[in-house]
Amino acid sequence: MKEILELLPFIKEIDQLKKIERQALIHNGGRRENTAEHSWHLAMTVMVFHSAANLKLDLAKAVKMALLHDLVEIDAGDTFVYDDLSSKKEKETKAIERLTGMLSQNLGEDFKNLWLEFEANESAEAKFVGAIDRFLPVYSNCLNEGYSWKNHGITKERVLARIQKPISEGLPALWEVTARMLDQAVQDGILKS
Amino acid sequence: MKEILELLPFIKEIDQLKKIERQALIHNGGRRENTAEHSWHLAMTVMVFHSAANLKLDLAKAVKMALLHDLVEIDAGDTFVYDDLSSKKEKETKAIERLTGMLSQNLGEDFKNLWLEFEANESAEAKFVGAIDRFLPVYSNCLNEGYSWKNHGITKERVLARIQKPISEGLPALWEVTARMLDQAVQDGILKS
Repeated sequence: MKEILELLPFIKEIDQLKKIERQALIHNGGRRENTAEHSWHLAMTVMVFHSAANLKLDLAKAVKMALLHDLVEIDAGDTFVYDDLSSKKEKETKAIERLTGMLSQNLGEDFKNLWLEFEANESAEAKFVGAIDRFLPVYSNCLNEGYSWKNHGITKERVLARIQKPISEGLPALWEVTARMLDQAVQDGILKS
Repeated sequence: MKEILELLPFIKEIDQLKKIERQALIHNGGRRENTAEHSWHLAMTVMVFHSAANLKLDLAKAVKMALLHDLVEIDAGDTFVYDDLSSKKEKETKAIERLTGMLSQNLGEDFKNLWLEFEANESAEAKFVGAIDRFLPVYSNCLNEGYSWKNHGITKERVLARIQKPISEGLPALWEVTARMLDQAVQDGILKS
């Protein structure tokens, strides 16, 4: 077990996640969202949507997973979901090893396993958190006139290809809402059909 | 129970916490920290310090409490710990009513009760989260040349009066670390004795 003093470098290190910029804007904020605040928003949304979802899952585990899911971006940066993802896996695996290596062995293993479980996208918790992680940027785009869709010339077909399966598998009721949102976005001219 | 569609206004509303600025800086970031990213950092630190603390407490509850503890700042703003706190309570109570009123009754009550429990600072979880919430700005000041201490002309005595009791009660081992940090800060000339 590590003492608190030995854990401080990790607490200092993860402060860096506040400097990783995502493609999404915050609402009415005039700036991009960073990954630390996104992780908070995701954890909150996990708690809130869980109350409306008739799913058997370990909420505490899902919340932890949400808090940890993007920690690797401290080293690997944010990967836009429509970018080439070929080198992402290797960078992120190195990052999780380095970061969890700053913790005591038990906690490091615990964090690493939660991240690996999220990435594998097989457990109910991973699918649930993954579904909401795909939904939030869509909602952000709808609230911010399609900011990152327009920036990258994204069409509705590309959005569907990326998010329909994970959202409908992880939280079916959320898919109905998202599908309607995308139709509305096309009608409003903020997403290309 | 509310449907997902009915919960979206809450998810949109809490995005506003990303716009609430605190007195602390992020490390090497050249800007102030906002309350959403602070809440993430606090929840992470709660998980990490729990691994080093020999305390009987419900970690899942403590993490939820960390995520929710400053939600009221959406309406009430950030109160600097050395400010006059007389009107804070009333504003924050109104805020938690308004915000949790956007949720289904069960979840709203759950969130409100967690926040009230945090504020009451009596349960082991509330004291634990409260201790770490007091510690993080001290650590931030030490990493950022006493930024908010200097801005407000804060002395070591005022820091002690504000944090010694909550930190030493909530997580005794953290108080030892913090006391040494404050001594060092005075020696380094970033905190007035």
